[in-house]
Order: sequence, then C-alpha cells, then structure tokens
Amino acid sequence: MTLYGYWRSTASWRVRLGLTIKGVPFDTVPIHLGQGAQLEGGFQAVNPQGFVPALTLDDGTTLTQSLAILEWLEETHPEPALLPADPIARAQVRAVAEVIACDVHPVQNLKVLKMLRALGQDQDGIDAWAARIIEDGLEACDALIAGQEGPFCFGDKVTMADVLLVPQLSNARRFGAELRWPRILEIEAACAELPAFKAAAPEAQPDFVP
Amino acid sequence: MTLYGYWRSTASWRVRLGLTIKGVPFDTVPIHLGQGAQLEGGFQAVNPQGFVPALTLDDGTTLTQSLAILEWLEETHPEPALLPADPIARAQVRAVAEVIACDVHPVQNLKVLKMLRALGQDQDGIDAWAARIIEDGLEACDALIAGQEGPFCFGDKVTMADVLLVPQLSNARRFGAELRWPRILEIEAACAELPAFKAAAPEAQPDFVP
Repeated sequence: MTLYGYWRSTASWRVRLGLTIKGVPFDTVPIHLGQGAQLEGGFQAVNPQGFVPALTLDDGTTLTQSLAILEWLEETHPEPALLPADPIARAQVRAVAEVIACDVHPVQNLKVLKMLRALGQDQDGIDAWAARIIEDGLEACDALIAGQEGPFCFGDKVTMADVLLVPQLSNARRFGAELRWPRILEIEAACAELPAFKAAAPEAQPDFVP
Repeated sequence: MTLYGYWRSTASWRVRLGLTIKGVPFDTVPIHLGQGAQLEGGFQAVNPQGFVPALTLDDGTTLTQSLAILEWLEETHPEPALLPADPIARAQVRAVAEVIACDVHPVQNLKVLKMLRALGQDQDGIDAWAARIIEDGLEACDALIAGQEGPFCFGDKVTMADVLLVPQLSNARRFGAELRWPRILEIEAACAELPAFKAAAPEAQPDFVP
C-alpha cells in the first residue's frame, strides 16, 4: 500500500504511526503541502479533497481521513491493538483521539491559518490562535486521562490516544503553546523510546526539511 | 442514560439520531450554549471540556465526543447497524462522517466564531467563513459518495455518514452556504421521511426555540 503524506502533517504522522506499530509495510509518496502539491492534478486524482493522508491499498482503493484509516487498520490488522477490548474503555480512548482530531487539529491546520492571514492576521495573531486552540485541547486531554495509569495515556499499552497526542505536541511547540501538563510530557517521553515512534517521526521521513 | 445536549448543537443531534435509530431510551438535559451554560459548574462536573454532547451511562460513566459515542453505541447496540460489515466500506462511511466531524463542524462551531468576532470580524465575515468551510466539506462528501447508490449516502441503509451529514445541512442553511449538490439534498429528503430523523430533529426537542 502507498501512503501519501507530508513529513510535517500531523494527520499523516498518525497513520505512519499506526502502520509502523502494526508492522504493515507501506511506500511513502511525499506531497509537499507548503508548495501546494495537494492542489495539483496528480494528487487531486487520489484525494479530491486535497488533504493528506491518503492511503491507497493494493486493490487501488484509496482511504482518506486519518481516524477512518486507523479504524480500518485496527479492524484488518488487529495486533498489536490500538484500542482496548472493553466498549467503554474504547470510547474513552477514542474521545482523547477525537479531541485532537476534531477540536484541535482542523482549527489550526494550514488551510485555516491561511484563511486567518487573508483576514489580516499577522504571524503573532496566527500563532496565538493556534496556541489557544492547542492548549484548550491538551487541557481537555489531560482531564480525560486523569486517574489513568501510565506510562501511556491509558496504561501500559500504546493506544490511538497516544498516536494522536504525540504528533499534536510537535504542533504545540511550533506555535508556542504552553505545555503545562506533566503527565502529557511523560507520555510523550515514553512514546519516544519506542522504535515505531522513532521510525514514524517527521525527522525520519525522506521529505523532512530541518 | 442521560444525554446532555442542545437543540441547535449538530454534534448533540448526531448522538440523538444514533440513540433514536437504535431505539435506545434516554433522558435529555438541555445545556443552553447560547447562554453559556456549558461553562457553569454543574455541567463542568459532567464534561470538563464544556462541550455537548455528553452521555452519562447508568453506571455513572460519562462519554464525550460524538463520534466516540456513536462508535460505542454501534459496539453495544449493533442493530440496526450504522456501519456496514466490510472494513473498506466501513472506512468509506467513516471518512464522510469525519469530513463533517473534523474538517467542517469544529471550524465553524460557536467557540471558533466567537474567536473570529474577537478578531474584529462582523457577522458577514463570520457567515462567509462558516459558509466556505461548510461548502468545502460538502464538496468533499459529494466526491466521497460519488457512484454510490441511494437513497442514502451508502445505499439503502442509513449509516453514520447520513447521521453526520443531515445535521450539518442545517448549519449550512444557517450560515448561507450554497447547497449545490443535488445528491446531498436527495439524501437529506430521504432521511427526513424516517421516524427517527423526525424524532431527533431540533424542532422536536424540549429546549427548541423557533
């Protein structure tokens, strides 16, 4: 299968993590978002929405939307599981994932920041917008994992919550968000020790620009 | 179980639809978002993020995030199914749901529109922002369901895609978005005929304000 992504896209990073954790081999096709490659004909034929990630399966089907791809991956490659077995526990993991995927990331992605710039916001204004959205989301995540054992969001197994949380922290730093949640930083550090998180990190990607 | 929601919140509407379609009885507690009730102590104890919907189960557990709640509902009350059986088909349904839940709704919700107002945008500017986001999302949904049979997004059974799409169309009209996709309007009309969609509609809720 082929993953169309971009080293700095946190949504692509989530899918890279899912594939890597589950040991599913994939090819990478970088789509340079900063240069507008997502709007060009070639990638538009893959994903008309022009968003990464898109995952083209061996039968030619293209899947889009990072959470839908991760759920597909969980159903077709169940081990190691990224969701616990109990339905309520699954809902709690998915809630953290969706705080990031719904309430945070889409409100600070490249498209929205460009719209803010078109409304006259300067870089400071844009950074402040993104930082506020990210801080509110991390505050919510911290509350949702309160009382859970570590080292990961939900105990001693990596879940979809960690897969969503870790890439978002990179954006948090990029936009100068305050990282005032020790538990979240401990989770990030625990994940950083794992080979799959090392392999899926932006700096390990072929299109990475320091 | 108890659903904390608001008649005009499309995320609450999704969960009402899921519960109603599956015939799960629930009590409703209205949280008046326009009056800031989501930020008051009582509801903050239920959901610290201050967002609706929140679903409190009979054992006292509160679930948040509409997609996580719908997935929990699908796992615990499988019939009638809101996802098809085939993993690729499930991913395609979820992708439409997530265009709405991730790329559209959070970028035009009350919080973001208040942030735009604080940046000096007037009502016309706010409406134009919301309409553009909604139109881009509906364009993506229309592409994702192209070639599928009707009357619903994916054939003759209501799925999570319809459950997410229909409430968003209400917001589309509210913000003056152009509704230029005949297939999407046909889906909305087909859903409107169903008793569950009638019962879950905003105007059928106890806190509805005309």
